[in-house]
Amino acid sequence: MDLPPVKIGLLGLGTVGGGTLTVLRRNAVLIAARAGRRIDAVIATALNPRKARDIDLTGIEIVDDAFTVADDPRIAIVAELIGGIEPARTLVLRAIHNGKHVVTANKALIAQHGNEIFAAAQARGVMIAFEAAVAGGIPVIKVMREALAGNDILWLAGIINGTCNFILSAMSDGGREFGEVLTEAQRLGYAETDPSFDVDGVDAAHKLTILAALAFGIPLQFSKVYVEGIRHITREDVQYAERLGYRIKHLGIARQVESGIELRVHPTLIPQAQPIARVNGVMNAVLVRGDAAGPVLLSGAGAGAEPTASSVVADLVDVVRALTTDPENRVPHLAFQPDTLEDLPILDIAEIETAYYLRLLAADRPGVLADVTRILGDRGISIEALLQLEHHVAAADVPIVILTHRVKERAMNEAIVAIERLDSIQGRIVRIRLEEFA
Amino acid sequence: MDLPPVKIGLLGLGTVGGGTLTVLRRNAVLIAARAGRRIDAVIATALNPRKARDIDLTGIEIVDDAFTVADDPRIAIVAELIGGIEPARTLVLRAIHNGKHVVTANKALIAQHGNEIFAAAQARGVMIAFEAAVAGGIPVIKVMREALAGNDILWLAGIINGTCNFILSAMSDGGREFGEVLTEAQRLGYAETDPSFDVDGVDAAHKLTILAALAFGIPLQFSKVYVEGIRHITREDVQYAERLGYRIKHLGIARQVESGIELRVHPTLIPQAQPIARVNGVMNAVLVRGDAAGPVLLSGAGAGAEPTASSVVADLVDVVRALTTDPENRVPHLAFQPDTLEDLPILDIAEIETAYYLRLLAADRPGVLADVTRILGDRGISIEALLQLEHHVAAADVPIVILTHRVKERAMNEAIVAIERLDSIQGRIVRIRLEEFA
Repeated sequence: MDLPPVKIGLLGLGTVGGGTLTVLRRNAVLIAARAGRRIDAVIATALNPRKARDIDLTGIEIVDDAFTVADDPRIAIVAELIGGIEPARTLVLRAIHNGKHVVTANKALIAQHGNEIFAAAQARGVMIAFEAAVAGGIPVIKVMREALAGNDILWLAGIINGTCNFILSAMSDGGREFGEVLTEAQRLGYAETDPSFDVDGVDAAHKLTILAALAFGIPLQFSKVYVEGIRHITREDVQYAERLGYRIKHLGIARQVESGIELRVHPTLIPQAQPIARVNGVMNAVLVRGDAAGPVLLSGAGAGAEPTASSVVADLVDVVRALTTDPENRVPHLAFQPDTLEDLPILDIAEIETAYYLRLLAADRPGVLADVTRILGDRGISIEALLQLEHHVAAADVPIVILTHRVKERAMNEAIVAIERLDSIQGRIVRIRLEEFA
Repeated sequence: MDLPPVKIGLLGLGTVGGGTLTVLRRNAVLIAARAGRRIDAVIATALNPRKARDIDLTGIEIVDDAFTVADDPRIAIVAELIGGIEPARTLVLRAIHNGKHVVTANKALIAQHGNEIFAAAQARGVMIAFEAAVAGGIPVIKVMREALAGNDILWLAGIINGTCNFILSAMSDGGREFGEVLTEAQRLGYAETDPSFDVDGVDAAHKLTILAALAFGIPLQFSKVYVEGIRHITREDVQYAERLGYRIKHLGIARQVESGIELRVHPTLIPQAQPIARVNGVMNAVLVRGDAAGPVLLSGAGAGAEPTASSVVADLVDVVRALTTDPENRVPHLAFQPDTLEDLPILDIAEIETAYYLRLLAADRPGVLADVTRILGDRGISIEALLQLEHHVAAADVPIVILTHRVKERAMNEAIVAIERLDSIQGRIVRIRLEEFA
């Protein structure tokens, strides 16, 4: 261990920045024993100085202006732990311009401005590491970029938003409604006061954008992700799914098919027997299928100060090890060499193929099921299971739950319109996508 | 992609060697797009030429003498895919001597001779990569060495033998006995004709040896692993475990405690609600707990031609990327810089601490339970659950199942001796360790 320490600067001393400092200090000896040199934070800035009050900042120069960090000639690496688009984007570009490597936990920034940032980094010969941007402490970026380098990646599916997973798990295990659990999640700090970023799927779409780029060698294209949240999931549907052997999870799914790439975030029924169905609470998980490796499941803490810091520190160690590596021998930002990225078409949601869970309210009289199954059959949709449920007391209509085989969503959309037009069907049909991951 | 192709040689064209060639060829374009250059196999040797018959060997020079591969001046990397100690050990040392990097899938070789091999590689400035040696297609070596580099690793537990997991899963799900399932596993090719290497835990001990070294910065010390297989597990115990909310898995467990390191392979009750309890059949899984990352679970295919090849190819890409890297900037073989490895004491099995499942056959008369619980209590062993089971028809004795809280194994050994001495207890007590992984 004769190598000199590497000096770094921190942008942000909030949850992740504070966690990173804590881990760097507590495990300094172990980290140096692995990396072959110390990693020393020498300068930092706090966007919200009150939040930084409880962190031990001994030996670290604290500055008000974040650009002082990005410009500091002593440091080789800037850790951007602010989050959000601005000023993070400008600061990262400035650090790159200054020839500094960047480690970031910022999924929105990478998903929405990654193409620009990676191009700038490539031109300047610096590295951008972003393990902490997806799934907190789970090393999914490293696994996709390096461990599966021999594979044609066929698809991936991830529980990549802890708030949604907490809510759906609690609805499942406690038989409760969405609104009630959301309130609890807010009280516990698992959901924001304005929860829409999480429960409407935007955060998961950011992460899926990144994972899909790494999997398929395509540019980042956040705007093309189909996004559906979990507000419309009811306790009933959660319970019917359980009766049929499934659990409802909010998944980001990316799949390579002949005509292009599926990129979609939505609630999904998955078999209870799949280990990923047992990933509950705020935990995250990503299931990737490589043509050679087969299915690989990674799960762990998807957020939180120290799990995220674990990924930030791993990135710091990786960057430190590659400081003297020729740029062409480094792991490419998006797993594939920039000149090999292909702009494969992202499919419209109507073109994706999946199985479905349908719930309808039907008049309890002969011939209704025959009408429904005929409409499905006419569109090539075959039924995997059908559950005719007990009457609600004093209700004339009876809920019917249908699981279908795989079919194009376009066909399902047409079938749903036709079924909803039947006199014997009350109201709208509930439709939730279903994946077996077999 | 202006970098010249890297030429490699293959030792062994059996299951893993054949799989590696297949994957290298099928995904050649993807691999080159990631690695920035082609990886070309130019020479190979088959230990059993009949096995290699179905592999497309176009463009590869096939030689009879394996040393011709290890000595070939054209190749930068030797992939050792023979398995077993000799001639693999001699060939690997020869390749190192010749300045070649080595990728190997050989767990026995690394577990038993890794210290010697790594020292030779270190002295010669070459890399030894061995992702494929543990858990097939699951990138557990990479995760331990790189992704968790910021963590103090507290413990790890792995389902790392597919044969044992297949047998225990089938006993659980089918209510069958060990011998019956073993015969089926042999018919399906999941168990060898002589299954002892797998079912007696030796293979798992090899893998645990490697994982523990990476986790704790200790030398490889296979001979100190406590090893217990699964031959003594009965259908009864599997079923009682299920009733109590547990599944029995054959685990390799390594844990850091104040007095040293626990290194043990044995059947273990684990809570059904843990995702790892759902890893069934021949699948493998490793659960690692870092102080910062928290628990991280990896699961996937633990063996087979292509999953193992996936890890071999990932190692090839890693080695190719690091060909021009200064040795001190490479990832150290055992995760920690060689001069920082610590020879922490490996605890005797009597010194480990765990919870227990006990099954005893007791006379159905008053006072028996009082005697048993007194003996346990006297040794500081508290009871978590107790199940008094239904009489066997016409049997005078009744089976009792007890789950205890955590205690030193030494105390449990003493308690078992004392309980077995009671007049009211028939035969030996069945004792299976239990871990909550909470």
